[in-house]
Amino acid sequence: MIEIIAFDADDTLWENESLYHRAKDEVARILSPFREPDWVKRKLDEIEISNLQFYGYGIKSFTLSMIETAAEAVDGTIEAHTISAILEIAKRMMSADVELLDHSEQTLVHLSSDYELMLVTKGDLYEQQRKIARSGIDHYFNVIEVVAEKTTAGYLDLLKKHHIEVERFLMVGNSLRSDILPIVAIGGRAVYIPNEKTWFHEVPGQEEIEGADYDELEHLGQLPEYMAALERALD
Amino acid sequence: MIEIIAFDADDTLWENESLYHRAKDEVARILSPFREPDWVKRKLDEIEISNLQFYGYGIKSFTLSMIETAAEAVDGTIEAHTISAILEIAKRMMSADVELLDHSEQTLVHLSSDYELMLVTKGDLYEQQRKIARSGIDHYFNVIEVVAEKTTAGYLDLLKKHHIEVERFLMVGNSLRSDILPIVAIGGRAVYIPNEKTWFHEVPGQEEIEGADYDELEHLGQLPEYMAALERALD
Repeated sequence: MIEIIAFDADDTLWENESLYHRAKDEVARILSPFREPDWVKRKLDEIEISNLQFYGYGIKSFTLSMIETAAEAVDGTIEAHTISAILEIAKRMMSADVELLDHSEQTLVHLSSDYELMLVTKGDLYEQQRKIARSGIDHYFNVIEVVAEKTTAGYLDLLKKHHIEVERFLMVGNSLRSDILPIVAIGGRAVYIPNEKTWFHEVPGQEEIEGADYDELEHLGQLPEYMAALERALD
Repeated sequence: MIEIIAFDADDTLWENESLYHRAKDEVARILSPFREPDWVKRKLDEIEISNLQFYGYGIKSFTLSMIETAAEAVDGTIEAHTISAILEIAKRMMSADVELLDHSEQTLVHLSSDYELMLVTKGDLYEQQRKIARSGIDHYFNVIEVVAEKTTAGYLDLLKKHHIEVERFLMVGNSLRSDILPIVAIGGRAVYIPNEKTWFHEVPGQEEIEGADYDELEHLGQLPEYMAALERALD
């Protein structure tokens, strides 16, 4: 029987990637006197990925990549107000309201009476804690963990730390790479809820997904019914 | 009796602030065609403090403040290579070797046979985890916690989470604001080991320190002897 359900947060419980989409549109507009929007977005994607090793995930990391993109986009010099405009994007992103996805809260209300709930989110600690505090749904979770990276080894540490047997654990998330495949690899159950805005970096190659044993739901509102069916099947 | 000794990391076990000092010197040099070094450093300090609410602590946050300082320092336009030079400082800081302070490792070796050791460090999760992994001393700690801010409430949560009674706990660190006063406030024991490079933001006003009950050592190498004397006194 499952006793603990762990949720990813960004783009599983609340909007996240949409903030980055809007920021990319905005930086492309800001740099449009120098380069085509497509050039800016492609360059930013490239720089963002190659900077992950230095900076990790999150808005600050992304902003340093926007600045680096701007320095590459211009010819020799850049207006100080262009730099300031990019820094303003970062501050707006950091202060943005947390927009819950449809069904988020009702699903947590429903499941919290039968399960221990856990929040496992990857990214910048300061940023994620701010969002958790503002989300209004933090009180549904018995355990909240912010991790720098979601790997198989990381999940094993997490389960050990909280004395959780993998048979009693189920993970829910929108990222095959971070929420689903590492759990499947340790013999755990995972429910994949795709989100069309998921960052391309979180999408693994087809060969990595092949044969992986997980279930997929269309939206979070289907999770209570899924859990009920799973419990009947396991009984 | 004390059973758990918790250590701060930055400028308690290893060098940290010196990286920021060197970076400040470097950005002052980079911006010297536009402003006096003192102007640059003063402006950077100001911007850094006012940005804490948006970005939290750490190198990425500091780098965004260096960029913002550059945008304010110049007259209208800035060379792209100036921006690139500042971003290079960030990448070097992120990749810098972890330099242990004198006595760090011997003290941990010595104390680890009699106490559970904990590492409690404030700052950016990705950055702190990288340093911990590279420090070569991570294996001395039974528990490692990276927190966004070291407050009284945060320490209470930490003790609760690890089922630690405050009477069995002692905290060691170089920051009166983050390592000492919050512990004293919850009736815990704290050992202050000043470091001349401590960031001014970590130094509280005299009125906050007055009457606070903590001990002070000159260096980490004195801690084993201090603990032995404390245990004799408590016995």
